[in-house]
Amino acid sequence: MKVVIIGSGNVAYHLANAFVLKGINLIQIFGRNENDLQEIALKTGVPFSTKILDNADLYIIAVNDGALEEVSQLITKKNCIVAHTSGSLPIEILQGEYRKAVIYPLQTFSKSKELEYHKIPFFLEAQNTEDYLFIENLALKISDHVEASSYEKRKYVHLSAVFACNFVNHLFARAKEITDAHDIPFKYLLPLIEETTHKIFQVEPKEAQTGPSVRNDVRITKMQEDLLNGEFLKIYKTMNESIKEMYEL
Amino acid sequence: MKVVIIGSGNVAYHLANAFVLKGINLIQIFGRNENDLQEIALKTGVPFSTKILDNADLYIIAVNDGALEEVSQLITKKNCIVAHTSGSLPIEILQGEYRKAVIYPLQTFSKSKELEYHKIPFFLEAQNTEDYLFIENLALKISDHVEASSYEKRKYVHLSAVFACNFVNHLFARAKEITDAHDIPFKYLLPLIEETTHKIFQVEPKEAQTGPSVRNDVRITKMQEDLLNGEFLKIYKTMNESIKEMYEL
Repeated sequence: MKVVIIGSGNVAYHLANAFVLKGINLIQIFGRNENDLQEIALKTGVPFSTKILDNADLYIIAVNDGALEEVSQLITKKNCIVAHTSGSLPIEILQGEYRKAVIYPLQTFSKSKELEYHKIPFFLEAQNTEDYLFIENLALKISDHVEASSYEKRKYVHLSAVFACNFVNHLFARAKEITDAHDIPFKYLLPLIEETTHKIFQVEPKEAQTGPSVRNDVRITKMQEDLLNGEFLKIYKTMNESIKEMYEL
Repeated sequence: MKVVIIGSGNVAYHLANAFVLKGINLIQIFGRNENDLQEIALKTGVPFSTKILDNADLYIIAVNDGALEEVSQLITKKNCIVAHTSGSLPIEILQGEYRKAVIYPLQTFSKSKELEYHKIPFFLEAQNTEDYLFIENLALKISDHVEASSYEKRKYVHLSAVFACNFVNHLFARAKEITDAHDIPFKYLLPLIEETTHKIFQVEPKEAQTGPSVRNDVRITKMQEDLLNGEFLKIYKTMNESIKEMYEL
């Protein structure tokens, strides 16, 4: 069973690396950006091309959502599976006469960062049972957490990740603006951030909530609002209100 | 130099434990809740009382902000230092003829959770240099990060912690509501959350931002807004706008 990855970004890089580590028969990385492809080839030893797409049983398209529809038309072969890796697009975005599938890995990828692939959850979709079992078998070689997921469900997986990852990182960025403006080393917040994250491995996040909002400490929340303006104040008020709503304060 | 801790909550518990581990002469834990005091005594071997406050050189009051002013009046001795542990109250909240100080540890404390005390930053304030050096010497026995901090600065330390810790935990809680409602195991988000946090130990959070908002992906942000309502939608819109403002999108 031959596999080709199309794309040369962070997802392509890490999928290729994980496949090779697990002995999956990845025969080619195909893409447009020769430098990025070369980097993946160096890491994995898998040949790359910007011109001729090899003949494979499974093509995995790991490109930006916006490019997916167009890239999916590069595959003219019919007797094969083509899978995209997006959490926010339906299987039907793939434009071709091949059999369609989705292999959505839930992780934030950076090339520079080593990842423990077995921890990454994979959400899968296919158009028939045989294809599903094929991509499931593949995903199980990499990950301990593999689950069937419709487009409907995948949308909520992605949405929850936006809250728990993208928005969380933005709060870190805003916190750093506060510390920078007041000559406080941001690194002093890191043990607290680490502890906040570690806690929810043991305790439900709802039970782990601390701080002035959940104590309904009006004196402090008022005082802190007075220290803020612009987007900071909007975030503060929104989060404060949402905490009060959750705990019925 | 004799030290007494007043209070029996999470902060008192961990300060007492850290002091004893570092050989600081903690002679008494004083408080109202006998069960909690007993728990600290069991952990640390330090005697406790609910009635008679021992004679000491330093009293550290680790009680809720709301109780601080009243508790500070229990100390009638004059020739001693009395320190509170609050990030959000001025040194003057302490009502007595003693010398006043603040020892503010920046951490989220739970009794059940072991902490690496040397990583906890301490922000200190005193009314004269001699007292400052005394409490600094004490804090340095516990922590690698000890810094002088006025009330003004301490307020911003606390505020940044509200963003990076309290609000972050609330986003975890809201994300869990999304996964619960759609039959997605919340544990699938944990590797992503861990990675999000680990990243900012190496990369500035502003540089580490990913997701549809920072890509200005209007299709996805619109689609995700349509999946949400109530507090979820308010949070989504507020964070999305704040991200756009930060990256000038």
